[in-house]
Amino acid sequence: MKLLNEALSKIQPVDPALLAQAQAKLDNKTKPIGSLGRLEEFARRYAAISGTLEPSTWKKVIFTFAADHGVVAEGVSAFPKEVTVQMVHNFLAGGAGVNVLANHVRAEVLVVDIGVDHDFGDTPGLIGRKIARGTRNLAQGPAMTREEAIAALEVGIELANGCKKEGIAMAGTGEMGIGNTTPSSAIVAAFTGRSVADLTHRGTGINDSALNNKVRVIEQALAVNRPDPADPIDVLAKVGGLEIAGIAGLVLGCAANRIPVVVDGFISTAGALVASELHPAVKEYLFAAHQSVEIGHAVMLERLGADPILDLKMRLGEGTGAALAMGLIEAGVKILKEMATFEEAGVAEGEY
Amino acid sequence: MKLLNEALSKIQPVDPALLAQAQAKLDNKTKPIGSLGRLEEFARRYAAISGTLEPSTWKKVIFTFAADHGVVAEGVSAFPKEVTVQMVHNFLAGGAGVNVLANHVRAEVLVVDIGVDHDFGDTPGLIGRKIARGTRNLAQGPAMTREEAIAALEVGIELANGCKKEGIAMAGTGEMGIGNTTPSSAIVAAFTGRSVADLTHRGTGINDSALNNKVRVIEQALAVNRPDPADPIDVLAKVGGLEIAGIAGLVLGCAANRIPVVVDGFISTAGALVASELHPAVKEYLFAAHQSVEIGHAVMLERLGADPILDLKMRLGEGTGAALAMGLIEAGVKILKEMATFEEAGVAEGEY
Repeated sequence: MKLLNEALSKIQPVDPALLAQAQAKLDNKTKPIGSLGRLEEFARRYAAISGTLEPSTWKKVIFTFAADHGVVAEGVSAFPKEVTVQMVHNFLAGGAGVNVLANHVRAEVLVVDIGVDHDFGDTPGLIGRKIARGTRNLAQGPAMTREEAIAALEVGIELANGCKKEGIAMAGTGEMGIGNTTPSSAIVAAFTGRSVADLTHRGTGINDSALNNKVRVIEQALAVNRPDPADPIDVLAKVGGLEIAGIAGLVLGCAANRIPVVVDGFISTAGALVASELHPAVKEYLFAAHQSVEIGHAVMLERLGADPILDLKMRLGEGTGAALAMGLIEAGVKILKEMATFEEAGVAEGEY
Repeated sequence: MKLLNEALSKIQPVDPALLAQAQAKLDNKTKPIGSLGRLEEFARRYAAISGTLEPSTWKKVIFTFAADHGVVAEGVSAFPKEVTVQMVHNFLAGGAGVNVLANHVRAEVLVVDIGVDHDFGDTPGLIGRKIARGTRNLAQGPAMTREEAIAALEVGIELANGCKKEGIAMAGTGEMGIGNTTPSSAIVAAFTGRSVADLTHRGTGINDSALNNKVRVIEQALAVNRPDPADPIDVLAKVGGLEIAGIAGLVLGCAANRIPVVVDGFISTAGALVASELHPAVKEYLFAAHQSVEIGHAVMLERLGADPILDLKMRLGEGTGAALAMGLIEAGVKILKEMATFEEAGVAEGEY
């Protein structure tokens, strides 16, 4: 609990004076006021989060948390559980979607085993922080103990604290875990009280009868576990996942360390939601990368008050959306830092 | 007319077999089928346009066409006309928004004087292809002669032909011209017959009474000139602009040379619309970079059958949206080229 409590006590709202100073700097650039739209929002918020009008975007990291889920025993995924392990090797070899897109935006991918049901031994490049060999089946009882959930949260916090030490400018979240849209839907249902059918989608490609089964499994999980929405750790432990807990911790830790954090899609946003339920000011430190195809995602984003940056009909996870959004946020920051002012360029200002 | 006729005769629909082959290649990558959404669409279309499943994205160029508009005499812009010249110098010095964003995606900005009302002499870096020192006031009569419009179209075609010779992989459009949202609204009104008030926005920042004046000016321009929507060159000449003509030519020339072309915002899309009215297959070669704040833009995109890639509430022009979209299109192409297949990565495929 020590790392978690420390992080929660450090989180402060972003300084509104910095937001205003950043906007004033943007308004002096050679363009009509506000004409770069959301790029200006990204720049303003990034500067205020980072605490400087000349923020760096140089070192960017995406954490891809991998874990397994006991609930796959209920037939909620189109892919066999072994794919989690196979994809971890694919990430480490640089062949997955997130590797390609992170390379494209010059971000590093760090793969964290926080709960894969496999002994990786000394696999080079893998960050081994396994809390358990997967969760238990949440349709039958709690996915994790409260202690496991806190330990997994603290893995994410520790990684964020490490980012601060390493001078990481911007962090992104990602995940791999066959079956993990099921706990994500369960989490948003637990916090919002909305019907499971309205929050549950086909995940990575199941058919109609499998979708009905998935809804039934989540309804059963909520009935069996009765997670308390006023106690976010209770929700996380009972119907969450280890990678979701790691992401929640990373987001909390980034807020505590004033590091802008880019939240990927549906599963990552479930983690960000747990973090923001633990501390409301967390919302001010995160960027929602994209609108996922998963139907529960818009409900999560609404609760977070976050406007997604991209809508490219993606539903892969891993951190793929976060990578693309990081490139756009960095573009906004470069506008703040690199564009000429009216005075520098000798350009006349408009009359409004 | 020779360059124009040659370009029109060379334009062919994209080969559907290549689209299918590109999608088959994407379907073999380590991800659920279709899970990268529109990135897959970008990759598939880019490959089919380029004529290869291993297309290059290395050399990217944004052409920023600059021109003046006689219609500024009617008070349609918040900025003085001199800003066109000042911004050309800003582009050449690398200080404008498009320079920052093009650098970010590793694209080159080429600035074309196609009709600025200023003698630039031997300004280093500027591509001097001036057809006239600005258009005439379209509220009083034709903006250009038919010959001027064709000459400006052919500037764009010649630049696209040059791209082919230079091995440019992807081209983007951009523009600078104080007053140029006015001809853009007039062009979409002329082609669609929709009311001017529904197609006219504040441009870069005019107030309510100036907006009413702008609507009146465009209505007057259409009444005075009676452009023939069945004759796109007539529309372009009477109510268009020289930079819009250059963009229309560039888009036509890219289609003729099978170069993917990324169309920026409102003014650029007016140019793309002229091109697609001249040849319907042009649509298959272009990518709509973003949804502009300008209200007439959605009407143009609908007529083009184009789904914008980004919606970041931008309204700057210059090619700024094109730059950001090029980065995302390139990301899609890298997925096609760089991601591991199921076989390469030893990952099990899902059951659908």
